[in-house]
Amino acid sequence: MYSNFISHIRKYVELDDNSIEVLHKYIKQTTLKKKEFLLKEGQICRSIHFVEQGCVRMYFTNNKMTEQTTQFALENWWISDFSSFIYSKPSEYFIQTVEKSVIISIDSIQFEAMLKELPQMERYLRIVMQRAWAAAQLRIKYMYELSKEEFYNHFCQSFPEFVQRVPQYMIASYLGLTPEYVSELRKKKL
Amino acid sequence: MYSNFISHIRKYVELDDNSIEVLHKYIKQTTLKKKEFLLKEGQICRSIHFVEQGCVRMYFTNNKMTEQTTQFALENWWISDFSSFIYSKPSEYFIQTVEKSVIISIDSIQFEAMLKELPQMERYLRIVMQRAWAAAQLRIKYMYELSKEEFYNHFCQSFPEFVQRVPQYMIASYLGLTPEYVSELRKKKL
Repeated sequence: MYSNFISHIRKYVELDDNSIEVLHKYIKQTTLKKKEFLLKEGQICRSIHFVEQGCVRMYFTNNKMTEQTTQFALENWWISDFSSFIYSKPSEYFIQTVEKSVIISIDSIQFEAMLKELPQMERYLRIVMQRAWAAAQLRIKYMYELSKEEFYNHFCQSFPEFVQRVPQYMIASYLGLTPEYVSELRKKKL
Repeated sequence: MYSNFISHIRKYVELDDNSIEVLHKYIKQTTLKKKEFLLKEGQICRSIHFVEQGCVRMYFTNNKMTEQTTQFALENWWISDFSSFIYSKPSEYFIQTVEKSVIISIDSIQFEAMLKELPQMERYLRIVMQRAWAAAQLRIKYMYELSKEEFYNHFCQSFPEFVQRVPQYMIASYLGLTPEYVSELRKKKL
Protein backbone atom coordinates (compact mmCIF):
# COMPACT_ATOMS: atom_id res chain seq x y z
CA MET A 1 0.00 0.00 0.00
CA TYR A 2 1.37 3.39 -1.03
CA SER A 3 4.73 1.79 -1.84
CA ASN A 4 5.61 4.09 -4.75
CA PHE A 5 4.49 7.11 -2.74
CA ILE A 6 6.62 6.27 0.30
CA SER A 7 9.67 5.35 -1.83
CA HIS A 8 9.36 8.61 -3.73
CA ILE A 9 9.32 10.65 -0.52
CA ARG A 10 12.25 8.64 0.89
CA LYS A 11 14.29 9.41 -2.25
CA TYR A 12 14.45 13.02 -1.06
CA VAL A 13 13.86 13.16 2.71
CA GLU A 14 13.95 10.94 5.77
CA LEU A 15 10.63 9.44 6.76
CA ASP A 16 10.62 6.98 9.64
CA ASP A 17 7.86 4.44 10.30
CA ASN A 18 6.14 6.68 12.85
CA SER A 19 6.00 9.50 10.33
CA ILE A 20 4.44 7.14 7.80
CA GLU A 21 1.72 6.39 10.35
CA VAL A 22 1.14 10.13 10.76
CA LEU A 23 1.13 10.63 6.98
CA HIS A 24 -1.67 8.04 6.60
CA LYS A 25 -4.04 10.40 8.43
CA TYR A 26 -3.72 13.02 5.73
CA ILE A 27 -3.85 11.11 2.48
CA LYS A 28 -6.62 9.33 0.63
CA GLN A 29 -6.04 6.47 -1.78
CA THR A 30 -8.56 5.86 -4.58
CA THR A 31 -8.68 3.27 -7.32
CA LEU A 32 -10.19 4.67 -10.49
CA LYS A 33 -11.24 3.00 -13.69
CA LYS A 34 -10.07 4.22 -17.10
CA LYS A 35 -11.49 7.64 -18.07
CA GLU A 36 -12.72 8.58 -14.59
CA PHE A 37 -12.36 12.21 -13.51
CA LEU A 38 -10.34 13.70 -10.64
CA LEU A 39 -11.41 17.21 -11.65
CA LYS A 40 -13.87 18.77 -14.09
CA GLU A 41 -13.89 22.23 -15.65
CA GLY A 42 -15.71 24.74 -13.41
CA GLN A 43 -14.91 22.90 -10.16
CA ILE A 44 -12.41 24.30 -7.68
CA CYS A 45 -9.42 22.00 -7.54
CA ARG A 46 -9.24 21.10 -3.84
CA SER A 47 -6.54 18.41 -3.98
CA ILE A 48 -3.13 17.56 -5.30
CA HIS A 49 -2.73 14.04 -6.67
CA PHE A 50 0.16 11.58 -6.78
CA VAL A 51 0.01 8.74 -9.32
CA GLU A 52 0.76 5.58 -7.32
CA GLN A 53 -0.14 3.39 -10.31
CA GLY A 54 -1.52 4.18 -13.74
CA CYS A 55 -1.64 7.24 -15.92
CA VAL A 56 -3.55 10.51 -15.75
CA ARG A 57 -3.86 13.46 -18.11
CA MET A 58 -4.90 17.08 -17.79
CA TYR A 59 -6.77 18.75 -20.64
CA PHE A 60 -9.02 21.67 -21.50
CA THR A 61 -11.69 22.09 -24.16
CA ASN A 62 -10.40 24.56 -26.73
CA ASN A 63 -12.49 27.00 -28.79
CA LYS A 64 -12.89 24.35 -31.50
CA MET A 65 -14.53 22.20 -28.79
CA THR A 66 -11.80 19.58 -28.99
CA GLU A 67 -9.82 18.26 -26.03
CA GLN A 68 -6.37 19.82 -25.75
CA THR A 69 -4.11 17.70 -23.51
CA THR A 70 -1.50 19.82 -21.71
CA GLN A 71 0.03 17.34 -19.26
CA PHE A 72 0.43 13.64 -18.53
CA ALA A 73 1.41 12.01 -15.25
CA LEU A 74 2.65 8.43 -14.95
CA GLU A 75 3.71 6.68 -11.73
CA ASN A 76 5.56 8.94 -9.24
CA TRP A 77 4.33 12.21 -10.73
CA TRP A 78 2.17 14.80 -9.04
CA ILE A 79 -0.68 16.40 -10.95
CA SER A 80 -3.11 19.19 -10.08
CA ASP A 81 -4.44 22.48 -11.41
CA PHE A 82 -2.17 24.55 -9.20
CA SER A 83 -3.75 27.94 -10.03
CA SER A 84 -7.15 26.62 -8.98
CA PHE A 85 -5.67 24.85 -5.92
CA ILE A 86 -3.72 27.90 -4.69
CA TYR A 87 -6.20 30.67 -5.48
CA SER A 88 -9.47 28.67 -5.00
CA LYS A 89 -10.77 29.71 -8.43
CA PRO A 90 -12.82 27.52 -10.78
CA SER A 91 -10.64 25.31 -12.92
CA GLU A 92 -10.51 25.48 -16.72
CA TYR A 93 -9.21 21.90 -16.82
CA PHE A 94 -10.29 18.30 -16.65
CA ILE A 95 -8.03 15.77 -14.92
CA GLN A 96 -8.87 12.26 -16.11
CA THR A 97 -7.36 8.78 -15.84
CA VAL A 98 -5.96 7.39 -19.10
CA GLU A 99 -5.95 3.83 -17.72
CA LYS A 100 -7.03 2.16 -14.48
CA SER A 101 -5.12 4.09 -11.80
CA VAL A 102 -4.38 4.21 -8.09
CA ILE A 103 -4.25 7.83 -6.95
CA ILE A 104 -3.10 9.31 -3.66
CA SER A 105 -4.77 12.64 -2.97
CA ILE A 106 -4.25 15.31 -0.33
CA ASP A 107 -6.89 17.99 0.01
CA SER A 108 -6.00 21.59 0.80
CA ILE A 109 -7.04 21.48 4.48
CA GLN A 110 -5.21 18.21 5.12
CA PHE A 111 -2.27 19.59 3.13
CA GLU A 112 -1.65 22.45 5.59
CA ALA A 113 -2.18 20.20 8.64
CA MET A 114 0.22 17.61 7.21
CA LEU A 115 2.93 20.23 6.58
CA LYS A 116 2.60 21.44 10.16
CA GLU A 117 2.95 17.95 11.63
CA LEU A 118 5.54 16.65 9.15
CA PRO A 119 7.87 19.51 8.25
CA GLN A 120 10.06 17.19 6.17
CA MET A 121 7.14 17.16 3.70
CA GLU A 122 7.83 20.87 3.07
CA ARG A 123 11.30 19.88 1.92
CA TYR A 124 10.02 16.95 -0.15
CA LEU A 125 7.40 19.12 -1.85
CA ARG A 126 9.85 22.00 -2.39
CA ILE A 127 12.11 19.54 -4.25
CA VAL A 128 9.17 18.12 -6.25
CA MET A 129 7.92 21.60 -7.21
CA GLN A 130 11.45 22.73 -8.14
CA ARG A 131 11.80 19.73 -10.47
CA ALA A 132 8.37 20.41 -11.94
CA TRP A 133 9.42 24.01 -12.63
CA ALA A 134 12.62 22.73 -14.29
CA ALA A 135 10.53 20.37 -16.46
CA ALA A 136 8.15 23.20 -17.39
CA GLN A 137 11.09 25.44 -18.41
CA LEU A 138 12.35 22.68 -20.70
CA ARG A 139 8.88 22.06 -22.09
CA ILE A 140 8.43 25.76 -22.92
CA LYS A 141 11.86 25.76 -24.61
CA TYR A 142 10.84 22.81 -26.82
CA MET A 143 7.57 24.55 -27.72
CA TYR A 144 9.63 27.47 -29.09
CA GLU A 145 12.51 25.51 -30.54
CA LEU A 146 11.42 22.26 -32.12
CA SER A 147 9.52 21.64 -35.33
CA LYS A 148 6.47 19.40 -34.97
CA GLU A 149 8.40 16.40 -36.33
CA GLU A 150 11.34 17.07 -33.97
CA PHE A 151 8.95 17.47 -31.03
CA TYR A 152 7.37 14.09 -31.82
CA ASN A 153 10.74 12.32 -32.24
CA HIS A 154 12.06 13.87 -29.05
CA PHE A 155 8.97 12.76 -27.17
CA CYS A 156 9.26 9.15 -28.44
CA GLN A 157 12.93 8.99 -27.46
CA SER A 158 12.44 10.58 -24.03
CA PHE A 159 9.26 8.76 -23.01
CA PRO A 160 9.04 5.43 -24.91
CA GLU A 161 6.73 4.07 -22.19
CA PHE A 162 4.18 6.83 -22.79
CA VAL A 163 4.02 6.04 -26.50
CA GLN A 164 3.15 2.42 -25.64
CA ARG A 165 0.57 3.24 -22.99
CA VAL A 166 -1.19 6.36 -24.21
CA PRO A 167 -3.61 6.45 -27.19
CA GLN A 168 -2.11 8.07 -30.27
CA TYR A 169 -4.76 10.83 -30.44
CA MET A 170 -3.89 12.00 -26.90
CA ILE A 171 -0.18 12.16 -27.73
CA ALA A 172 -1.05 14.08 -30.91
CA SER A 173 -3.11 16.55 -28.87
CA TYR A 174 -0.33 16.98 -26.29
CA LEU A 175 2.20 17.71 -29.05
CA GLY A 176 -0.17 20.10 -30.82
CA LEU A 177 -0.40 17.81 -33.88
CA THR A 178 -3.31 16.20 -35.69
CA PRO A 179 -3.75 12.42 -35.21
CA GLU A 180 -3.29 12.04 -39.00
CA TYR A 181 0.10 13.76 -38.86
CA VAL A 182 1.25 11.55 -35.94
CA SER A 183 0.12 8.53 -37.92
CA GLU A 184 2.24 9.67 -40.89
CA LEU A 185 5.28 10.28 -38.65
CA ARG A 186 4.83 6.84 -37.12
CA LYS A 187 4.82 5.17 -40.55
CA LYS A 188 7.96 7.12 -41.48
CA LYS A 189 9.73 5.72 -38.38
CA LEU A 190 8.84 2.08 -39.11
CA MET B 1 18.91 46.75 1.89
CA TYR B 2 17.12 43.61 0.67
CA SER B 3 13.78 45.22 1.54
CA ASN B 4 11.80 43.59 -1.28
CA PHE B 5 13.46 40.25 -0.55
CA ILE B 6 12.62 40.30 3.17
CA SER B 7 9.05 41.55 2.56
CA HIS B 8 8.51 38.81 -0.01
CA ILE B 9 9.63 36.10 2.41
CA ARG B 10 7.50 37.61 5.22
CA LYS B 11 4.43 37.48 2.96
CA TYR B 12 4.55 33.69 3.28
CA VAL B 13 6.47 32.74 6.44
CA GLU B 14 7.60 34.21 9.74
CA LEU B 15 11.12 35.59 9.76
CA ASP B 16 12.30 37.36 12.92
CA ASP B 17 15.21 39.80 13.07
CA ASN B 18 17.65 37.11 14.24
CA SER B 19 16.72 34.94 11.28
CA ILE B 20 17.35 37.87 8.95
CA GLU B 21 20.85 38.14 10.42
CA VAL B 22 21.37 34.44 9.74
CA LEU B 23 19.99 34.79 6.22
CA HIS B 24 22.55 37.52 5.43
CA LYS B 25 25.34 34.93 5.70
CA TYR B 26 23.92 32.96 2.79
CA ILE B 27 22.95 35.55 0.24
CA LYS B 28 24.92 37.81 -2.04
CA GLN B 29 23.63 41.12 -3.39
CA THR B 30 24.99 42.44 -6.67
CA THR B 31 24.20 45.59 -8.62
CA LEU B 32 24.40 45.00 -12.35
CA LYS B 33 24.28 47.38 -15.26
CA LYS B 34 21.90 46.89 -18.18
CA LYS B 35 22.73 43.86 -20.36
CA GLU B 36 25.10 42.20 -17.87
CA PHE B 37 24.98 38.41 -17.55
CA LEU B 38 24.09 36.24 -14.56
CA LEU B 39 24.56 33.09 -16.66
CA LYS B 40 25.90 32.22 -20.10
CA GLU B 41 25.21 29.20 -22.30
CA GLY B 42 27.61 26.35 -21.50
CA GLN B 43 28.13 27.37 -17.86
CA ILE B 44 26.65 25.34 -15.02
CA CYS B 45 24.01 27.42 -13.28
CA ARG B 46 25.23 27.45 -9.67
CA SER B 47 22.79 30.00 -8.22
CA ILE B 48 19.18 30.99 -7.98
CA HIS B 49 18.45 34.70 -8.29
CA PHE B 50 15.82 36.99 -6.78
CA VAL B 51 15.14 40.33 -8.49
CA GLU B 52 15.32 42.94 -5.71
CA GLN B 53 15.15 45.75 -8.24
CA GLY B 54 15.15 45.84 -12.02
CA CYS B 55 14.35 43.33 -14.72
CA VAL B 56 16.05 40.19 -16.00
CA ARG B 57 15.35 37.87 -18.90
CA MET B 58 16.29 34.31 -19.80
CA TYR B 59 16.91 33.40 -23.45
CA PHE B 60 18.56 30.85 -25.69
CA THR B 61 20.06 31.15 -29.15
CA ASN B 62 17.84 29.26 -31.57
CA ASN B 63 18.91 27.45 -34.73
CA LYS B 64 18.43 30.65 -36.73
CA MET B 65 21.03 32.19 -34.39
CA THR B 66 18.53 34.66 -33.00
CA GLU B 67 17.80 35.23 -29.31
CA GLN B 68 14.64 33.49 -28.14
CA THR B 69 13.44 34.96 -24.83
CA THR B 70 11.59 32.38 -22.72
CA GLN B 71 11.16 34.18 -19.39
CA PHE B 72 11.20 37.60 -17.77
CA ALA B 73 11.57 38.41 -14.08
CA LEU B 74 10.67 41.77 -12.56
CA GLU B 75 10.91 42.72 -8.85
CA ASN B 76 10.02 39.88 -6.44
CA TRP B 77 10.49 37.10 -8.98
CA TRP B 78 13.00 34.28 -8.83
CA ILE B 79 14.89 33.26 -11.94
CA SER B 80 17.34 30.45 -12.66
CA ASP B 81 17.95 27.61 -15.08
CA PHE B 82 16.56 25.00 -12.73
CA SER B 83 17.58 21.95 -14.81
CA SER B 84 21.18 23.15 -14.80
CA PHE B 85 20.98 24.13 -11.10
CA ILE B 86 19.51 20.80 -9.97
CA TYR B 87 21.40 18.38 -12.21
CA SER B 88 24.70 20.36 -12.52
CA LYS B 89 24.61 20.17 -16.31
CA PRO B 90 25.76 22.92 -18.69
CA SER B 91 23.05 25.46 -19.35
CA GLU B 92 21.54 26.14 -22.75
CA TYR B 93 20.44 29.58 -21.58
CA PHE B 94 21.66 33.10 -21.01
CA ILE B 95 20.29 35.08 -18.06
CA GLN B 96 20.79 38.80 -18.65
CA THR B 97 19.64 42.08 -17.08
CA VAL B 98 17.20 44.09 -19.21
CA GLU B 99 17.86 47.24 -17.16
CA LYS B 100 20.11 48.20 -14.24
CA SER B 101 19.22 45.64 -11.56
CA VAL B 102 19.88 44.65 -7.97
CA ILE B 103 20.02 40.88 -7.70
CA ILE B 104 20.08 38.64 -4.63
CA SER B 105 21.75 35.32 -5.37
CA ILE B 106 22.12 32.11 -3.38
CA ASP B 107 24.59 29.54 -4.65
CA SER B 108 23.88 25.82 -4.41
CA ILE B 109 26.20 25.14 -1.44
CA GLN B 110 24.87 28.11 0.54
CA PHE B 111 21.35 27.08 -0.49
CA GLU B 112 21.55 23.73 1.31
CA ALA B 113 23.25 25.25 4.37
CA MET B 114 20.61 28.00 4.54
CA LEU B 115 17.74 25.48 4.38
CA LYS B 116 19.31 23.50 7.22
CA GLU B 117 19.67 26.56 9.45
CA LEU B 118 16.41 28.28 8.45
CA PRO B 119 13.81 25.58 7.84
CA GLN B 120 11.09 28.22 7.28
CA MET B 121 12.90 28.93 3.99
CA GLU B 122 11.87 25.41 2.84
CA ARG B 123 8.26 26.49 3.28
CA TYR B 124 8.84 29.85 1.59
CA LEU B 125 10.56 28.25 -1.38
CA ARG B 126 7.95 25.46 -1.62
CA ILE B 127 5.29 28.16 -1.93
CA VAL B 128 7.36 30.12 -4.48
CA MET B 129 8.02 27.00 -6.58
CA GLN B 130 4.35 25.96 -6.40
CA ARG B 131 3.30 29.38 -7.71
CA ALA B 132 5.92 29.19 -10.44
CA TRP B 133 4.54 25.79 -11.48
CA ALA B 134 1.02 27.27 -11.54
CA ALA B 135 2.27 30.15 -13.73
CA ALA B 136 4.01 27.70 -16.08
CA GLN B 137 0.80 25.62 -16.42
CA LEU B 138 -1.08 28.76 -17.41
CA ARG B 139 1.66 29.83 -19.81
CA ILE B 140 1.62 26.43 -21.54
CA LYS B 141 -2.18 26.65 -21.83
CA TYR B 142 -1.91 30.06 -23.53
CA MET B 143 0.72 28.72 -25.93
CA TYR B 144 -1.81 26.10 -27.07
CA GLU B 145 -4.94 28.20 -26.90
CA LEU B 146 -4.36 31.77 -27.99
CA SER B 147 -3.71 33.16 -31.44
CA LYS B 148 -0.65 35.41 -31.72
CA GLU B 149 -2.80 38.54 -31.56
CA GLU B 150 -4.73 37.25 -28.53
CA PHE B 151 -1.45 36.30 -26.83
CA TYR B 152 -0.11 39.83 -27.36
CA ASN B 153 -3.31 41.51 -26.12
CA HIS B 154 -3.47 39.23 -23.11
CA PHE B 155 0.15 40.03 -22.27
CA CYS B 156 -0.43 43.81 -22.53
CA GLN B 157 -3.48 43.59 -20.26
CA SER B 158 -1.85 41.30 -17.69
CA PHE B 159 1.55 42.98 -17.51
CA PRO B 160 1.22 46.65 -18.57
CA GLU B 161 4.41 47.47 -16.64
CA PHE B 162 6.45 45.02 -18.72
CA VAL B 163 5.28 46.63 -21.95
CA GLN B 164 6.56 50.00 -20.68
CA ARG B 165 9.90 48.73 -19.41
CA VAL B 166 10.96 46.03 -21.85
CA PRO B 167 12.12 46.71 -25.45
CA GLN B 168 9.56 45.76 -28.06
CA TYR B 169 11.82 43.22 -29.79
CA MET B 170 12.24 41.26 -26.53
CA ILE B 171 8.48 41.11 -25.97
CA ALA B 172 8.06 40.00 -29.60
CA SER B 173 10.61 37.23 -29.05
CA TYR B 174 8.93 36.11 -25.80
CA LEU B 175 5.56 35.91 -27.54
CA GLY B 176 7.01 34.06 -30.55
CA LEU B 177 6.21 37.01 -32.88
CA THR B 178 8.35 39.11 -35.22
CA PRO B 179 9.09 42.69 -34.09
CA GLU B 180 7.31 43.89 -37.26
CA TYR B 181 4.13 42.02 -36.29
CA VAL B 182 4.21 43.50 -32.75
CA SER B 183 4.68 46.94 -34.26
CA GLU B 184 1.58 46.38 -36.44
CA LEU B 185 -0.47 45.17 -33.44
CA ARG B 186 0.66 48.21 -31.46
CA LYS B 187 -0.51 50.58 -34.19
CA LYS B 188 -3.83 48.74 -34.31
CA LYS B 189 -4.33 49.35 -30.56
CA LEU B 190 -3.62 53.10 -30.73
